[in-house]
Amino acid sequence: MTDYRRLRVALLGAGAVGSQVAALLRQHADELADRAGARLELVGIAVRDVDAPRETDLPRDLFTTDAESLIVGSDIVIELMGGIEPARAYILQAINSGADVVTANKALLATHGPEIFDAADQVGAEVYYEAAAAGAIPIIRPLRDSLAGDRVQRIMGIVNGTTNYILDRMDTEGAEFADVLADAQRLGYAEADPTADVEGFDAAQKAAILASLAFHTTVPLDAVHREGITAIDKSMMDAARHAGYVIKLLAVCERLTEASGSESISVRVYPALIDRAHPLASVHGANNAVFVQAEAAGNLMFYGAGAGGVQTASAVLGDVVSAARRHIAGGVGVGESTLANLPVVPVGRVTTRYQITLEVDDQAGVLATVAGILSEGRVSIATVEQTVIDAGAGEPAVARLVIGTHKALEQDLSETVDRLAASGVVERVVSVLRVEGD
Amino acid sequence: MTDYRRLRVALLGAGAVGSQVAALLRQHADELADRAGARLELVGIAVRDVDAPRETDLPRDLFTTDAESLIVGSDIVIELMGGIEPARAYILQAINSGADVVTANKALLATHGPEIFDAADQVGAEVYYEAAAAGAIPIIRPLRDSLAGDRVQRIMGIVNGTTNYILDRMDTEGAEFADVLADAQRLGYAEADPTADVEGFDAAQKAAILASLAFHTTVPLDAVHREGITAIDKSMMDAARHAGYVIKLLAVCERLTEASGSESISVRVYPALIDRAHPLASVHGANNAVFVQAEAAGNLMFYGAGAGGVQTASAVLGDVVSAARRHIAGGVGVGESTLANLPVVPVGRVTTRYQITLEVDDQAGVLATVAGILSEGRVSIATVEQTVIDAGAGEPAVARLVIGTHKALEQDLSETVDRLAASGVVERVVSVLRVEGD
Repeated sequence: MTDYRRLRVALLGAGAVGSQVAALLRQHADELADRAGARLELVGIAVRDVDAPRETDLPRDLFTTDAESLIVGSDIVIELMGGIEPARAYILQAINSGADVVTANKALLATHGPEIFDAADQVGAEVYYEAAAAGAIPIIRPLRDSLAGDRVQRIMGIVNGTTNYILDRMDTEGAEFADVLADAQRLGYAEADPTADVEGFDAAQKAAILASLAFHTTVPLDAVHREGITAIDKSMMDAARHAGYVIKLLAVCERLTEASGSESISVRVYPALIDRAHPLASVHGANNAVFVQAEAAGNLMFYGAGAGGVQTASAVLGDVVSAARRHIAGGVGVGESTLANLPVVPVGRVTTRYQITLEVDDQAGVLATVAGILSEGRVSIATVEQTVIDAGAGEPAVARLVIGTHKALEQDLSETVDRLAASGVVERVVSVLRVEGD
Repeated sequence: MTDYRRLRVALLGAGAVGSQVAALLRQHADELADRAGARLELVGIAVRDVDAPRETDLPRDLFTTDAESLIVGSDIVIELMGGIEPARAYILQAINSGADVVTANKALLATHGPEIFDAADQVGAEVYYEAAAAGAIPIIRPLRDSLAGDRVQRIMGIVNGTTNYILDRMDTEGAEFADVLADAQRLGYAEADPTADVEGFDAAQKAAILASLAFHTTVPLDAVHREGITAIDKSMMDAARHAGYVIKLLAVCERLTEASGSESISVRVYPALIDRAHPLASVHGANNAVFVQAEAAGNLMFYGAGAGGVQTASAVLGDVVSAARRHIAGGVGVGESTLANLPVVPVGRVTTRYQITLEVDDQAGVLATVAGILSEGRVSIATVEQTVIDAGAGEPAVARLVIGTHKALEQDLSETVDRLAASGVVERVVSVLRVEGD
């Protein structure tokens, strides 16, 4: 066995991912040493409660509640505690004591990324976070390195497994949101409090990280437009299917170019219609995928498991090996680039296509009125489908209008929908959904 | 504008990819400098004929026929000439004169990779080759870095755009191979001499590169089992579709584990049946995709354009930026790992499922005879479908047997098919296809 240099690895957190990382570090110690060119010695695992029951049979003397002492003298610190504090403080301590950091903490990076990357830059350390953007899917290195000579135009990501699982089952089984959510909670695909997933908070954090990297721009989390999937119901799913679409919760990161040539970006998370022939439409179950459109490379897609303890551990260990190789090879960290720092525009400045579903009075002249309001609002109609709804005996006749638009400015669209709602001929705005993927 | 350090970049070759790389290096000079942390100065382009007509309007004084002088003093040498010599000699000269090398030369790496990587190791240089394995698709960094802490079990790649284009059109249009090939040649998807593509030579080179990287093993090109797609006809396509499969030319790189725990690998390229629900089945046209199964990460897929000048240029430029960052950051190259160096076994030692199509005499006892021969040959039957073929008036009745097997050893299968052919009851072995993707 080669006599490798030893690197001291500290692990913070022993949850689903942390315990897998610890187990794999020990199981594959020899193979990892060969790959890293250094023996990765797990010197300790910081936890809140040393005596808590754990799934893996790690030696008890590895555990400590004293994270600060553990960090001192470590070469690589793996932060898998989650949350903002004390994770942030520990990561800064690690950087300032000369360690490289590996983290899967998307919430922290999406809110305190610049502070952490700046601290690393100051001392020539590196922060690795492959597991923070799309679980096991390698997307950070492709964006940061492989596409470093290209210009990313747009990223469309299915980056939350829970919501994709729910929407996929609603689509394939014709089930209602609440029923599938309850089932997902029972099966462990959704948390008891599903807010972070179904309201798009988790996806918004990942979108901020992906957009920062792709556009070399600091993207504050509150600049990410966010809508969840709780308003999606069976009838919307059915209508989408009928029109050749599927509804997915998408994280869209887009470069916008004005006629003047000045550039900005938009980062947004919302449920959107996507053509069934699009590669993202066939991402089923709790899988994730990130679709990248680049100027030279064209369309790329990265697909895999977006979550799961052992899957995420794979991404974390890849980062640990990279950090170790850098320790062996020498040299300073390259750091994150925010040199472009493009402005992040509000969603109102974005143009997409829309599908508007209305219930209107079934009488002469209504379509003309609706079309007139859309035209005045600078929303151009691409397709219209009108069907009469059986409103029951004695009720006035109602028609359903499904209008597909050409690309329109979100702000124009939104104001136009308000005017439609107040027009007197529209009984109900059933749904307004963006269409992505052109 | 930041006053960056200048790095001298030499380009060897100005074909479809080279001319795009040169154009992008100049067009995006400022942006690339920001990303690389260094100004990438294209100091010259070595070509055979300085006065040959070129698509891009590069200054004539950049061109030279004297590659050796151009390499002297360069920090980064981009080799896009293709072929073995003089590309090999120039790359070795570049490494030994202290440059990092970026190449898209799959033929060279598949045959002389170890020599080149060893030379780089000796002097601490790096060789980057993202464009050599799957065109614009970032697959080298994911395999080398992101999955460095994981164990790859299997790679199944659609790594040749020409053959995927042909097979996809045969599948969707019900066309014959020769007709689609002629059309592909007319449209520029296939070369006038299509041998390298349709006989699987190009895919075999890429398979050798991917397997070397995934399994940390030197894979000689002649250890790659290779079959092309010229024998695939409309009837095989129709039968595949009928059975819920599609035929794809797959590069399969697989880790095999004996009961004793000893490991080896198999690397093979052949047309295979794949379930229509498998993500690889929906890779259409000239696109490529690489499906990776790893122990911890699970199933991953990387999808995109496998060829094209500008698409491939994106991958080359990503490598150039990586090389520049390494020059700025300092440190020695990490090099390629062949520490595992597993044995590469012949295709006879591989187990897969098979679909065997036979024409047999339509008389009592034939199925029993066929089943008996399979059983004796250790080939277990999973499914059988028998249909009677109308052989025409006066001809003896013929039945078609489509047999799906459980997993069987290729060598057993092959010997069993020989025995079937000689059994007297089999009129014709119509086709034997492997089924991949379990």
